[in-house]
Amino acid sequence: MSALESLHERVAELADLTALEMLAKWDQLVMMPSEGAPARAFQLGVLARLAHERGTAEEIGGWLAELDDADLGDVDRDIVRLARRDWERARRVPPELAEELSRAQAEGQERWQEARARDDFAGFAPALERNVELARAYGKCVADDGQSTYDALLADYDFGLRTVELRRVFAELARALPPLVDEAVLRSPRRRLAVPVGAQQAAVAGTLRRIGVDEASWRVDVSAHPFTSWMGRRDTRLTTRYLDGDVESLLSSLHEYGHALYERQVDPALERTNLGFGTSMSVHESQSKLWENHVARNRGFAEVLAGELEKAGCAVSAAELHASLVGVERTLIRVSADPLTYPLHIILRFELELAMVEGDLEVGGLPDAWQDGMRRLLALEVPSDAMGCLQDIHWGAGSFGYFPSYALGCLIAAQLWETIEAQLGPRDEDLRRGEVVPIQRWLAEHVHRHGRRLDTVPLVERATGRGLDSEPFLRYVAPLAGR
Amino acid sequence: MSALESLHERVAELADLTALEMLAKWDQLVMMPSEGAPARAFQLGVLARLAHERGTAEEIGGWLAELDDADLGDVDRDIVRLARRDWERARRVPPELAEELSRAQAEGQERWQEARARDDFAGFAPALERNVELARAYGKCVADDGQSTYDALLADYDFGLRTVELRRVFAELARALPPLVDEAVLRSPRRRLAVPVGAQQAAVAGTLRRIGVDEASWRVDVSAHPFTSWMGRRDTRLTTRYLDGDVESLLSSLHEYGHALYERQVDPALERTNLGFGTSMSVHESQSKLWENHVARNRGFAEVLAGELEKAGCAVSAAELHASLVGVERTLIRVSADPLTYPLHIILRFELELAMVEGDLEVGGLPDAWQDGMRRLLALEVPSDAMGCLQDIHWGAGSFGYFPSYALGCLIAAQLWETIEAQLGPRDEDLRRGEVVPIQRWLAEHVHRHGRRLDTVPLVERATGRGLDSEPFLRYVAPLAGR
Repeated sequence: MSALESLHERVAELADLTALEMLAKWDQLVMMPSEGAPARAFQLGVLARLAHERGTAEEIGGWLAELDDADLGDVDRDIVRLARRDWERARRVPPELAEELSRAQAEGQERWQEARARDDFAGFAPALERNVELARAYGKCVADDGQSTYDALLADYDFGLRTVELRRVFAELARALPPLVDEAVLRSPRRRLAVPVGAQQAAVAGTLRRIGVDEASWRVDVSAHPFTSWMGRRDTRLTTRYLDGDVESLLSSLHEYGHALYERQVDPALERTNLGFGTSMSVHESQSKLWENHVARNRGFAEVLAGELEKAGCAVSAAELHASLVGVERTLIRVSADPLTYPLHIILRFELELAMVEGDLEVGGLPDAWQDGMRRLLALEVPSDAMGCLQDIHWGAGSFGYFPSYALGCLIAAQLWETIEAQLGPRDEDLRRGEVVPIQRWLAEHVHRHGRRLDTVPLVERATGRGLDSEPFLRYVAPLAGR
Repeated sequence: MSALESLHERVAELADLTALEMLAKWDQLVMMPSEGAPARAFQLGVLARLAHERGTAEEIGGWLAELDDADLGDVDRDIVRLARRDWERARRVPPELAEELSRAQAEGQERWQEARARDDFAGFAPALERNVELARAYGKCVADDGQSTYDALLADYDFGLRTVELRRVFAELARALPPLVDEAVLRSPRRRLAVPVGAQQAAVAGTLRRIGVDEASWRVDVSAHPFTSWMGRRDTRLTTRYLDGDVESLLSSLHEYGHALYERQVDPALERTNLGFGTSMSVHESQSKLWENHVARNRGFAEVLAGELEKAGCAVSAAELHASLVGVERTLIRVSADPLTYPLHIILRFELELAMVEGDLEVGGLPDAWQDGMRRLLALEVPSDAMGCLQDIHWGAGSFGYFPSYALGCLIAAQLWETIEAQLGPRDEDLRRGEVVPIQRWLAEHVHRHGRRLDTVPLVERATGRGLDSEPFLRYVAPLAGR
């Protein structure tokens, strides 16, 4: 086999191992009996160790050296470029640490699930401490010369982004948003709609079906925290949850659909290569936020959602539903937050995880720090840790450096949406009829098909003609405050 | 690390890979959207290749050599003994063949599912031909000097059993059973009970709950063909199916429970070693057949089942239910067969797969040969391939040499049951009250806890005081023919 063939085979194998890991984690959260957890932690540990061993093998270095001056086509050149980047980065992590991380993450998720159910932060703290320690150890291993630990962690989710840039963008938002929130809670207050769970389920199923979710290549299940998995381009699994007296499920299912569509529309020629995945967490979040903020919260699309609710026996006007979906309210829960306050939730998490990783905040001090931050950014008191620092799975799952991408996703989604409307015309009339095919196609062409071939900023520049820019997002939320 | 520690770590890894393979296959048959199949075939191929590579690595030979004269405890001695046996056998299979087998098996299952649904043998034949060729290639690789290909295949399911012995046992049954069938269809004819699917589901759930199936460590799902998976001792997943106007689900769920209980009661000290699994397919089938034939078909236990059906709103007397569960009828479908005709279905499959592997039967001739065999053994005409040679998943999944264990399981179950009743007293009164704990404990002590430490015949000898013996089974079925 040539060096290129060997490399192709190896990246295919690694893609398959990633799919198996997705399956094992999806199953853990959606299907697995709870007492299966200890065995699952071992199974995930072995997958992680094998992926690490195969992805960091000496022989890959040999193939890469042979391919240094090779005359390659465009795709193969990118396969080799990303293989080199991934290999060099992964080689810095000892196999034992990779396995320990994976095991601690699986156990951390279990502890988090229990602790959240019982509002028991003390029960979660040891697992969180372990995850912070391991994240630090990992960040130190993978850091480039002079790179900070947190910057090194960020690169796993968003290659090329830096803490200093996050501080700048988040400072802009932290300055601009609170005055808008003060006005919006008066002008566009959130009103809850008492939609029964059964009607929500039917409306979610009906809406997803209208935009292409079929049983032949999708699953839609329930989990404590909505998420999306893919085990190949044609096996997409999204989860949602249904809360009585809220319509969050209508938003979160469209949010997850955005993640799912991204992976499904990557160029099929990149499947089972190292390029056949979404390029970064912030671009991924831009896709989910685009469907959540700009489609599900669109005034025209509210007619589709109201129609689906009506079919399920729940009469609500499109205007009333739309007002509920875009209404602003200071809330304790990130995933229930309106689009205007949402980035403030992220800024809090960014500050706290940065402080934990840099050693400025002990894990034991997290509940108090959370309380302080919520007072400062959102003027809210936190009544319990379950409604506070235990609400998200991320830290339990060992993800540090992931949260910022949620806020960047809001910004990029708004940039993409302005470009879509500039190129295709206003979307309201199409969305009133549930017509999303032009949006799907535009995203496939300008965002999805590239897979990992373009990093975040080059991709945004190419798709929108500009770099990262907070103005479109601020224009999107301004009307909520009557501006 | 010492050689023993290295070996322990490797067998733990292989046990984890086996669990992941079980998960991927369970998901494929129970949860996966159909279009996920091509990607799943690649994923299973990679798992098989990695398991093969790690299980056949040169270094294992080094550890085994070092451990040759080591002073080891009982368990470690068996770990080393089985590791040597497995390693030597697996080393004979080239990695490419192992991966090809796995991929062909995954694809064969998909083709089988489609072909069965459409009664389209021609659509399945190419996949079956491929599986037969690969089974032959595999059998030739693993055969000992002078061992026949089919004997070599058998050893994967039942180490130490030989075709010549199967021919002898099956000849005994083929001689003794048909006259019994002639009498039994008149004396104990099967009468179908029209139990609605909903009541069956409730009764299956209620019965399983009474014998220890809880949500914390079990799943019970629906699939086209009932089967059982385990991803660790405390994550047990059985499936069943519900047919309108039949109570097969009451039997098949207890059958699958027998498989599940075996794996759950292996000595916890053997977990994540090469000993921590059921020892052979025939002993596994003896466990499922014990719960199907000797518990679910017990006259006393019929009161439990009838009680559960009554709770579900379906009134049926215990006597009527029992008569239906033990009634004899010549049927086309193996899994619906009564205990008396069941081994004749197996003898047919044994003859046909032996002929296909030995080259005496072309795949294209299978439907006719099936027809001939059913006429000869069961005096039945086969109206369609879906009701004939397409009814079982095994050949589609590449399993040749597996079927015989079903009939051996019936024999061993009857041997074990006679021993249980000899030692604990007749079980009827206990079973009338749903009391199965003494049976569970007896099986744990005499069968389950040993895992792979004892092969089939030594285990049966130790548990029953005798070798393989068809007399207890013939005594069990004789009353159906009024003898």
